[in-house]
Amino acid sequence: MTQPIQFWFEFASTYSYLAAMRVDEMAKARGVEVAWRPFLLGPIFHAQGWDTSPFVIYPAKGKNMWRDFERRCKQRGLPWRDPQEGLIDLFPQNSLLAARLTLVGLKEGWGRDFARAVYQAQFGEGRDISTGEALSPLIEASGGTADSALAAAGSPEIKSQLRTNVEEAIALGVYGAPSFTVGEELFWGDDRLEDALAWAVVTR
Amino acid sequence: MTQPIQFWFEFASTYSYLAAMRVDEMAKARGVEVAWRPFLLGPIFHAQGWDTSPFVIYPAKGKNMWRDFERRCKQRGLPWRDPQEGLIDLFPQNSLLAARLTLVGLKEGWGRDFARAVYQAQFGEGRDISTGEALSPLIEASGGTADSALAAAGSPEIKSQLRTNVEEAIALGVYGAPSFTVGEELFWGDDRLEDALAWAVVTR
Repeated sequence: MTQPIQFWFEFASTYSYLAAMRVDEMAKARGVEVAWRPFLLGPIFHAQGWDTSPFVIYPAKGKNMWRDFERRCKQRGLPWRDPQEGLIDLFPQNSLLAARLTLVGLKEGWGRDFARAVYQAQFGEGRDISTGEALSPLIEASGGTADSALAAAGSPEIKSQLRTNVEEAIALGVYGAPSFTVGEELFWGDDRLEDALAWAVVTR
Repeated sequence: MTQPIQFWFEFASTYSYLAAMRVDEMAKARGVEVAWRPFLLGPIFHAQGWDTSPFVIYPAKGKNMWRDFERRCKQRGLPWRDPQEGLIDLFPQNSLLAARLTLVGLKEGWGRDFARAVYQAQFGEGRDISTGEALSPLIEASGGTADSALAAAGSPEIKSQLRTNVEEAIALGVYGAPSFTVGEELFWGDDRLEDALAWAVVTR
């Protein structure tokens, strides 16, 4: 018996990239279903008095994060671009449109490929991922249709769905990304994916 | 060829407990020397505007930390005491005296056993570790002499040595505990002990 795992990710988050690129493969190997749940950290950070990422607010923490992120991308053979070449000036990127488009794509079947493409464009290639212009080619490459997806992303239904994701994340105690939940059990960080999957596999 | 690893730990830190209980064994298996470096997070947190632990300041983060800490203690078979039985009200404990005593003990040969005993008393048994009265039995059990160790812990030399540790940690970019450094390469968190050891064994 396994329980499904909820994968909570934020497009501006470096460590969400690490998790997005491995969660499906690892879950499949254990027979665990994954629900991809895009959400926004902005409202959560704002509620605790932060107007940007803690990696920007606390420079020592930010410096080590970028170094650690580089080491881990290289360990895993993931595309990585030196943030000093421009990415660090964009960080954290506005992830609102990418999150809404992912919700459209998850309904239409291209959402996971799109999400991975957005992460790779951002952290593997150092690209802007905040605009429709930037994201359109990624929608098309993932099997969607850019014009209709962008229109759907602005619909009340999708806007509401993203707000609901944020509210549900907060209710589950999520305070950073990526996070994983199995029922009400919360695991924070790419480093806890293994623990979350083990939790999903044990019969309770 | 291996390089030595510096193990930076703070007695108030839950995750430092996890690292303290395994660092020597894991390093020995890889032929890596470990230098135990007690330091204080208080001055570092204070400099970034925090007057206590981020696990207290940010309740969602704190709640998940205690849960995650419980899961990991149990995974590793480490003594664990439910923080709701009183420990959470002491957290973060004043670690100044324990840190100074560890410096005394490291010179006299009982420092590592003492440090592990302090962690186990605190997180495995829920005990106060902030006073000479609380720490004296742990000194004796580790092979030291409580009266002389407490006197030495108040000496200008030991006080200065702890200040130097804090300054060196800051200079290396340390912003949390535990941390590990190999030369100038910084690794943050018990989760990065494996990476730090791998870094130490690669010839550079």
